[in-house]
Amino acid sequence: MIAYNNKAWHRHIFVWKGAVIRGIWPRILIFMAWTALIIYLYDIGAIPSEKKIDMVIYNVVGLALGLLLVFRTNTSYDRYWEGRKLLGSMTNSSRNIALILDNRVPKEAKEQRKDFAELIAAFSYAYKEHMRDGVKREDIPCLREEYKDIVFASKHVPLAIMKLLQKKVSDLQAKNPVNTITIGLDTELSNFVNNLGGMERIRNTPVPFAYAAHLQLFIVIYFVGLPFGLYDKFHWLAVPAVGAISLILLGINEIGVEIEDPFGDDPNDLPVDKICENIEKNVNQILLEN
Amino acid sequence: MIAYNNKAWHRHIFVWKGAVIRGIWPRILIFMAWTALIIYLYDIGAIPSEKKIDMVIYNVVGLALGLLLVFRTNTSYDRYWEGRKLLGSMTNSSRNIALILDNRVPKEAKEQRKDFAELIAAFSYAYKEHMRDGVKREDIPCLREEYKDIVFASKHVPLAIMKLLQKKVSDLQAKNPVNTITIGLDTELSNFVNNLGGMERIRNTPVPFAYAAHLQLFIVIYFVGLPFGLYDKFHWLAVPAVGAISLILLGINEIGVEIEDPFGDDPNDLPVDKICENIEKNVNQILLEN
Amino acid sequence: MIAYNNKAWHRHIFVWKGAVIRGIWPRILIFMAWTALIIYLYDIGAIPSEKKIDMVIYNVVGLALGLLLVFRTNTSYDRYWEGRKLLGSMTNSSRNIALILDNRVPKEAKEQRKDFAELIAAFSYAYKEHMRDGVKREDIPCLREEYKDIVFASKHVPLAIMKLLQKKVSDLQAKNPVNTITIGLDTELSNFVNNLGGMERIRNTPVPFAYAAHLQLFIVIYFVGLPFGLYDKFHWLAVPAVGAISLILLGINEIGVEIEDPFGDDPNDLPVDKICENIEKNVNQILLEN
Amino acid sequence: MIAYNNKAWHRHIFVWKGAVIRGIWPRILIFMAWTALIIYLYDIGAIPSEKKIDMVIYNVVGLALGLLLVFRTNTSYDRYWEGRKLLGSMTNSSRNIALILDNRVPKEAKEQRKDFAELIAAFSYAYKEHMRDGVKREDIPCLREEYKDIVFASKHVPLAIMKLLQKKVSDLQAKNPVNTITIGLDTELSNFVNNLGGMERIRNTPVPFAYAAHLQLFIVIYFVGLPFGLYDKFHWLAVPAVGAISLILLGINEIGVEIEDPFGDDPNDLPVDKICENIEKNVNQILLEN
Amino acid sequence: MIAYNNKAWHRHIFVWKGAVIRGIWPRILIFMAWTALIIYLYDIGAIPSEKKIDMVIYNVVGLALGLLLVFRTNTSYDRYWEGRKLLGSMTNSSRNIALILDNRVPKEAKEQRKDFAELIAAFSYAYKEHMRDGVKREDIPCLREEYKDIVFASKHVPLAIMKLLQKKVSDLQAKNPVNTITIGLDTELSNFVNNLGGMERIRNTPVPFAYAAHLQLFIVIYFVGLPFGLYDKFHWLAVPAVGAISLILLGINEIGVEIEDPFGDDPNDLPVDKICENIEKNVNQILLEN
Repeated sequence: MIAYNNKAWHRHIFVWKGAVIRGIWPRILIFMAWTALIIYLYDIGAIPSEKKIDMVIYNVVGLALGLLLVFRTNTSYDRYWEGRKLLGSMTNSSRNIALILDNRVPKEAKEQRKDFAELIAAFSYAYKEHMRDGVKREDIPCLREEYKDIVFASKHVPLAIMKLLQKKVSDLQAKNPVNTITIGLDTELSNFVNNLGGMERIRNTPVPFAYAAHLQLFIVIYFVGLPFGLYDKFHWLAVPAVGAISLILLGINEIGVEIEDPFGDDPNDLPVDKICENIEKNVNQILLEN
Repeated sequence: MIAYNNKAWHRHIFVWKGAVIRGIWPRILIFMAWTALIIYLYDIGAIPSEKKIDMVIYNVVGLALGLLLVFRTNTSYDRYWEGRKLLGSMTNSSRNIALILDNRVPKEAKEQRKDFAELIAAFSYAYKEHMRDGVKREDIPCLREEYKDIVFASKHVPLAIMKLLQKKVSDLQAKNPVNTITIGLDTELSNFVNNLGGMERIRNTPVPFAYAAHLQLFIVIYFVGLPFGLYDKFHWLAVPAVGAISLILLGINEIGVEIEDPFGDDPNDLPVDKICENIEKNVNQILLEN
Repeated sequence: MIAYNNKAWHRHIFVWKGAVIRGIWPRILIFMAWTALIIYLYDIGAIPSEKKIDMVIYNVVGLALGLLLVFRTNTSYDRYWEGRKLLGSMTNSSRNIALILDNRVPKEAKEQRKDFAELIAAFSYAYKEHMRDGVKREDIPCLREEYKDIVFASKHVPLAIMKLLQKKVSDLQAKNPVNTITIGLDTELSNFVNNLGGMERIRNTPVPFAYAAHLQLFIVIYFVGLPFGLYDKFHWLAVPAVGAISLILLGINEIGVEIEDPFGDDPNDLPVDKICENIEKNVNQILLEN
Repeated sequence: MIAYNNKAWHRHIFVWKGAVIRGIWPRILIFMAWTALIIYLYDIGAIPSEKKIDMVIYNVVGLALGLLLVFRTNTSYDRYWEGRKLLGSMTNSSRNIALILDNRVPKEAKEQRKDFAELIAAFSYAYKEHMRDGVKREDIPCLREEYKDIVFASKHVPLAIMKLLQKKVSDLQAKNPVNTITIGLDTELSNFVNNLGGMERIRNTPVPFAYAAHLQLFIVIYFVGLPFGLYDKFHWLAVPAVGAISLILLGINEIGVEIEDPFGDDPNDLPVDKICENIEKNVNQILLEN
Repeated sequence: MIAYNNKAWHRHIFVWKGAVIRGIWPRILIFMAWTALIIYLYDIGAIPSEKKIDMVIYNVVGLALGLLLVFRTNTSYDRYWEGRKLLGSMTNSSRNIALILDNRVPKEAKEQRKDFAELIAAFSYAYKEHMRDGVKREDIPCLREEYKDIVFASKHVPLAIMKLLQKKVSDLQAKNPVNTITIGLDTELSNFVNNLGGMERIRNTPVPFAYAAHLQLFIVIYFVGLPFGLYDKFHWLAVPAVGAISLILLGINEIGVEIEDPFGDDPNDLPVDKICENIEKNVNQILLEN
């Protein structure tokens, strides 16, 4: 994620890092070249000048295109924000579990406290990598080797860590009488599982293919026809005009593409790494600091 | 569901599988033929050329059509995404139940663990088929025959499996003192029932008929009139123009139609089969692996 | 509710049952007659032909009208879908209560089981009619006469059934030690009350009057002025044009009107009767089948 | 709130009570007078007729105005509907508390039952007035004088009633063994507090000032410029045209203003009085009827 | 936050405090100067008058700009309102905790009651400053020095206060038998942590950079081109026209910028200070008043 000052508008106009132009400049050039070709063909008379598209037709479909593009961006933003909420909920549950355990595990049982802090942090690093290319042993430095041996024997590493954590909690509860704090603990643990499932859902279910494909087709038809509509009034100015319009419209589409799967490490993705580090720090502050 | 790379835009433009064109090409051809007929009648003078529709009227209704179409797609997408959330919630509850049972059922009681794993997986296969053409015995290979005899005696198979599962859980609880883990178990079981109900709701309640029918009527009026508006400025070019516009607008409508009932096995439906298989795998990893 | 095949588009265009045309044809005729009158007055010179409305003004307000109409439909659809969710939640709670009771009430206590099944089904029939013209004794055939005597003595019948049901549950709990299943039971019973309240909310609180009234005024101003804008370019063709535009725009408004109170028995209302029957069937399957 | 038949459209067009015209007619007259002045200045040549605004600029900003206005109405409606949900939730919690107490308090303890019924109803009347001009002793006729002395000694009356009610519940629980019904009671009581907070939130946090102020500025710029755009094609007809447009656009804004704070007693506010009376009636039916 | 009378529209038009003009006037002047330069270059013939941009292109992209701007405002408002809900939820939880403690802590234990009231208020002041520039000792006057020593030893002050509060609650529970009121207490405490996390989420995750940057680029392209489109029909009037359009469109963008991070102390931010003071007052009324 790029942190930026939202009032320093002048610094955001001509940036490359994080800007949508990185993903769309080839298409912009293609549409401009196509426009130049058509204008040239009109000029040499290969296309008779009365064969043109009246712009009225662009009023008709332009609205639909604008609505579809903005709806697409909207949908992607909803996925982005839902992803952020799930990560936030992970932070909350980690803190809550740590706060409850802080009251259950005696101050002297340093080893047991270390155990819990380690597993909670390991879980957060594990789901982070699970959302990317799969978890590898070196991704979870905070976890001791004997636990790594156990969890990497399973296919689904975060679930295996979860199983280990639930085992530890269960052992702790077995030694204590039933009490209400336990309910909170169980709720937060199942919240971990729910959030993990929510992130897998966003990660594995893209915007429906029919939607994405139809939008691409729409854009191509739109820009293939555009030079025939602009020639009459713009002549060679149609080339920069198509450049500007395609920069704007393709850019809106590209925002949606960039943010719809927000758990990666692109400049416009969520600050997942930082959030996971914070979870480790917070849990350590609560459980290990005096 | 079609998995695709959302940055490989060029591969999505001319596809057939999963594209909306499959469902709308007959209507596109009809509207193009109608346009050709009208242009011909103008040309031979059967329609006097001063009888035409000024395109200003299309500005007026075009906006309403665009908004309605996008609203329809939006609504269908909400149904699609709610369906996905319900399936995700099923996954979460299955994992949570398995994790809780893993702590309650002793490691040695392998048969009992197998029992639970079987019933949870069977429930997921049962509701999947219940959302399609009804559950048949062969749809639930993981369930032992004696259980099949019981559940297929009832009309509503998923509910019958649920009743069996709740019975097993209840037996387990009867042997144990009241404790808080039980609360989690009951919550997750009633979540199963709630998700099942949610999926039936999406499956059985389409977009209101008045809405779907009025939109179809609107589209027909729109395209029946369009040639009278385009003749003047487009002449024979009106035929491809109507083709392009109808491809775009009918396509938006078709996206809505494709995804509004997302539990089938069309290319644009949710990956229900894969999700159910994953539930079985996850539950087995937690309950049956050591 | 009308069940329909959403891919059979050609069957939905010229239908009468369930279509919005039923409610709007008088207004369409009025606007067309008004248009004919104005055109006639222009023709005989009673209105000088230079007194006309430039269509540019319709671009300005047309957008606002389109947005308002679609927003209205949107709001009504949200009410419709929330109503559907509440009915679905009733189904879920009924099933959950039945599943829990199935584990609490011994198989032999057939009378007690019949008692519960009867009251749950009676509650669903009672709120259904409560949402329409009020509950009458003959609306709840499944309830025994002695219970009817009790509940019809109160003004608010569904609440009275609820009171009876909660009494029965309370008696059952008194005989048993405190346990967690009881919590589930209480949660589901209060969910019954919450859903009932939610349905009363939708039923008794329409879209704000200012909103509905302003939209009607807007539509009238719009169509009163339209002939003055269309005369110039459409002449007598303005009459069918106004017919088509009013069919489309009034139709969108009418969809909103039809579905905003979804608990009635109009063709576009929710399938409330069927849902209530299913509740009875499901509860009987769980509690009374072996 | 005005109850109305949503199909009797003809009765809603020319109404005064509840219509937005009440709040906007002075502005409409101002804009019409301004238009008349400008037209007059053109006519006498004080403004040269070539100094005019081309309407193309109104296409550009008109869309933004339409979207902003509808978004404003939308936001206000969300506040209105959220307010309605909070009131509904109050009703639900009142009924649930009454139903639970009905099972806990013996039939003979009529005084204690009266006590609870009184406090629950008093709470609903208190928050109602708290949302308006503050609670006065005469606003809560159902509460006995000795309780009034206690609660009116505090600044925040509804909270004071809540404190009293929670005390009574706590006394009741102290006499009984721990049981699950108690959990329901505590949940509903904290729901009372949450709903009260939710209503205070809507009441005390208007739409951001920047938003409301910018919209007003936008509208003024829009209508100040409009006569310069309309003169050319409308001449004196611009006066009624501006009247109609301002009636429509200001009206949309006014709907938002009317409903954004829905707890007052304007014609377009929520039926708060009636809802509170119903709470009293329902609670009495459950707790005091036999 | 600025409190205002939403019906006194005339007072909101020409205000400076809280208005968006404060943040955008430099850009408006730049765009007007640019327009003046272009018009001058046309006039002296430096740009041939046939090199112009037809306004049809602005119809095409204008809609996309309008939709994007309004969507941006919409998204920011959602953040603003979610922030308000989180603050409201803090208020509710504070009141609920106080009400529960009021029943658990004896009236005579004045010191213990003071202790709790202090910590709850301190938590609210701490997260308020945590959302701004970090918490300093002088920001929490209500907290006694010995507690300050403890909590300011940690990096994350609100979490440290939370740890202290949970310790006190845990001590209280240890002296009492398990009971249901405890569950409510734990729920509200974890709600504190969840709300804190929610506010950090809004504070630390801005609208995606790609979105904000693309919108700025769009606006610049739009206004750089506009004079070439307006020259023909507006000549020198293009300068005030660009001023008005940029005031309107930049203003909409600026609303979004102003309210998207609502926890600061700008005129358009939430009344965080007042809400925190109210929390202190309410908690004191409940716990310390008799």
